[in-house]
Amino acid sequence: MLSRLLPDRDMSEIPENFLPIESIGIEDIDNLFESKCFSRHASQAIDQLITYLGDRSTRGLALTDPAGIRAAVTRLTLGGQTSDTAEHDRKLAEIVDLYLQTGIQVYSPGYMGRQFSGPFPVTAVVDMVSAIATQPASFYEAGALPCVVERVMSEEFNRFLGFPSDRFTMFTTSGGSLANLTALLAARGRRYPQAWGEGMGETDCCPAIAVSSDVHYSITRAAGILGIGENRLVRLPLDHARRITPAGAREALDAAAARGLDVFCIVANAGSTSFGAIDPLDELADMAAERGIWLHVDGSHGGSLIVSDRLRPRLAGLNRADSLTLDAHKTMFVPAACTLLFYRDRDQATAAFRQEASYVFENTSDVYSEYNSADRNFECTKRPMIMSLWALWAMYGRTAIAEKLEALCDMTRKAHGILSVAPDFVPLHLPETNILCFRYLPNEQLSPKALGALQTEIRSRVRARGRFFISKVDIDGVSALRLVLMNHRITTDHIRQMLDEVRAVALTIREEFPQSEEI
Amino acid sequence: MLSRLLPDRDMSEIPENFLPIESIGIEDIDNLFESKCFSRHASQAIDQLITYLGDRSTRGLALTDPAGIRAAVTRLTLGGQTSDTAEHDRKLAEIVDLYLQTGIQVYSPGYMGRQFSGPFPVTAVVDMVSAIATQPASFYEAGALPCVVERVMSEEFNRFLGFPSDRFTMFTTSGGSLANLTALLAARGRRYPQAWGEGMGETDCCPAIAVSSDVHYSITRAAGILGIGENRLVRLPLDHARRITPAGAREALDAAAARGLDVFCIVANAGSTSFGAIDPLDELADMAAERGIWLHVDGSHGGSLIVSDRLRPRLAGLNRADSLTLDAHKTMFVPAACTLLFYRDRDQATAAFRQEASYVFENTSDVYSEYNSADRNFECTKRPMIMSLWALWAMYGRTAIAEKLEALCDMTRKAHGILSVAPDFVPLHLPETNILCFRYLPNEQLSPKALGALQTEIRSRVRARGRFFISKVDIDGVSALRLVLMNHRITTDHIRQMLDEVRAVALTIREEFPQSEEI
Repeated sequence: MLSRLLPDRDMSEIPENFLPIESIGIEDIDNLFESKCFSRHASQAIDQLITYLGDRSTRGLALTDPAGIRAAVTRLTLGGQTSDTAEHDRKLAEIVDLYLQTGIQVYSPGYMGRQFSGPFPVTAVVDMVSAIATQPASFYEAGALPCVVERVMSEEFNRFLGFPSDRFTMFTTSGGSLANLTALLAARGRRYPQAWGEGMGETDCCPAIAVSSDVHYSITRAAGILGIGENRLVRLPLDHARRITPAGAREALDAAAARGLDVFCIVANAGSTSFGAIDPLDELADMAAERGIWLHVDGSHGGSLIVSDRLRPRLAGLNRADSLTLDAHKTMFVPAACTLLFYRDRDQATAAFRQEASYVFENTSDVYSEYNSADRNFECTKRPMIMSLWALWAMYGRTAIAEKLEALCDMTRKAHGILSVAPDFVPLHLPETNILCFRYLPNEQLSPKALGALQTEIRSRVRARGRFFISKVDIDGVSALRLVLMNHRITTDHIRQMLDEVRAVALTIREEFPQSEEI
Repeated sequence: MLSRLLPDRDMSEIPENFLPIESIGIEDIDNLFESKCFSRHASQAIDQLITYLGDRSTRGLALTDPAGIRAAVTRLTLGGQTSDTAEHDRKLAEIVDLYLQTGIQVYSPGYMGRQFSGPFPVTAVVDMVSAIATQPASFYEAGALPCVVERVMSEEFNRFLGFPSDRFTMFTTSGGSLANLTALLAARGRRYPQAWGEGMGETDCCPAIAVSSDVHYSITRAAGILGIGENRLVRLPLDHARRITPAGAREALDAAAARGLDVFCIVANAGSTSFGAIDPLDELADMAAERGIWLHVDGSHGGSLIVSDRLRPRLAGLNRADSLTLDAHKTMFVPAACTLLFYRDRDQATAAFRQEASYVFENTSDVYSEYNSADRNFECTKRPMIMSLWALWAMYGRTAIAEKLEALCDMTRKAHGILSVAPDFVPLHLPETNILCFRYLPNEQLSPKALGALQTEIRSRVRARGRFFISKVDIDGVSALRLVLMNHRITTDHIRQMLDEVRAVALTIREEFPQSEEI
């Protein structure tokens, strides 16, 4: 795998005759828009993708020195643009080849490390169609189909989510970070309606947001962006499985109030990034209701569990949230970004943004503008990201997603079982989703610092070997290894092989550093 | 065109046997990941796209009643998911057909109305490859190729932009609105470094942003989002061509200071949304430098002019901006979103966000993490949007983009010429880019209100006829018609035909409303 990573010729050499040409003429440009040009390019790329998807080998990431990739990119960038179609074909082939060889091999069972996956291949076809069809999805006029599809899909999801059907809303937005920011903005707008016009300088109390101590960085960033202040986060304590503890949360909220902080929003995880932990949503909803606080659930990773009849109970209480982020590009297996943002009450959604722009916003509402989402989503030009998810749902059915997700969660539990009985490993929690953190335990007792350093070194070396890709995470300052199972082709055999790989690299580390504390 | 918009069977009827099935099995799911499944889907979609791209007819938007589309979408969503591959193929064909028939027909010369275009078809192929290759572009580990490509492309662009080569930075982000927000955040961070941690409540002066009176709504939104306050915008006056006047700007800035406002950022347009107007960047840069103000240039529409040797002089002074937004999905003809955000000084870029997340951010910088952009861009999972732009640039050369852009700007000037000599039209400005606003003038004298209402009605009716698609814009409260020429196949004949269409609908309006003031 590593050996075929890059073309074997010397890529740092840029021939003299590869200097850019200065003109190709409008007729040549027009040819590039001809259907036969598209046909040639597309057929060729598809052949390459077929080969790629057919490769069932176990492999991780071929982590390459940037200098090698850079030389290849530079050569392709600077060299020899002509109107010669054969040359175009050759270059495209090289670009696609380079693309498929670099990066994490997400369709391989060796990939066990991040929250994205090789999407259902049909979604890639839909992305291609989306690029040609050009229906930006914030306004019905330009994006009639995706706008309607968002509406229909919102109703599909709400069959499982259970928000009030006459009041809820859902729309797509460009990534979980943007969805979280948007929801927090709506929460801010509810508590401080004057902030939009007058700024946060006019709030005379101390706005604050309560978050899981395992909050995603997009939430802490949002506090900085929105003028709340990153230091105004109230971190709620966690149990051994990294879930917010209701009692701890009550105490922390009381203490915050005593310090003069006005907590206007609680952010809970439904599938934390580190552990896949699901916070006690029902208890947090009680607390939020009692205190008049907005409850936002960051379900970027685990929100999709609602589409599985078997997994849905893990999200009990979700229907009581004020807002919910769900990344379909994580656990619904479509290309990034495809994030769904739900609000229990659509009036709160439109309060997030207020603006006027005559070239896009109509003053009068009509049958068309009712389908616009631009008053609720951040983007002006929004990619019709819903289309790939919808195609998948319409063609194969919800159950294709749900059953893949169930298979992944089941396999993660099996991995937990394997780790539990292995003498040289310790799983750190019973996985609630498809994420599992664990540590390798050497024979000798190590300090926490050395134990963490060992995990980090193991992770780097496993990655460097190129067969398996796992990730690492810091837990209270001590590193751990982390599995994210995104490929339904991963079997217990692959898990065992990966653990053997960890053992093997741990052995080499031991040989290099006989004093383990020095790693 | 209209007649073939939707399948002609009754779509509101959902047969009983189309109820969703409840299980398809993991083996069936695995088949959906097989290369032969992808091959079948892709080949079929490509055939449909070839037919679509081959249609050279003049047509605009088939604006459809949402109910019709909704019925079709509902039928496809609810009906008959099975593991039968023939059924999958049939559904995909129907989805693609529906997709291509709805929406604005952007590859047709009848389309003259918005800032997106039918992209170079090869970019759609690259989008498909991107979906399979799955290289999210914020971190080198996952997105090695797009991370390197961003770096190389930043250098390519800077050959024309002229920022200090040892200090500037460029990265992609998901849309012009997000790029503008990010740049304003960097500007806020420079003036109020404590705001990130402590919130905007701690700033004891009155932060304000000076903007063109024709500012895009994403900027006014950003003021609301960042805790500055939408009411803290200082609007700079415009000349007849809707460009900021330097003298007026000085006065407005002085007046703002006298009112106790601390203007920390000026936002200028390089291609305003309404007019395509380019503000006097050199004079504004002088003003910003004198007063220690950040200069952000919203070049979402017109920033791409820098790649044309002939058009570049229109952007004189751009190299003195602190930051620049450029939407390649507008005037570089790639799929949305593909936005480039430039900073003259990369240290300012990293000051926009501050955070820590052990599962993604490495504390130590190495040869790989140096290529990460997550410390500068908002997104965690970022679409590798640079890839389609790069493929275009590498395969066909910069000149393919530049010459298409020149052809569009030239044709817009020709349209201006045609309107200038027509007795029943008045162009409102000499176009600086490919956007031109104008009004139809009836024989009789109308009040401004009635004149505006007439334009709005003309625009709606032209749109409804389905042959041409133009847009409208409000100028100081009075509507005007607006051309945005994005298709190099538009000729002066098409312009004349469109004007004839306007005349024809104006005549029908006249017949229906003999008293023009009553429109």
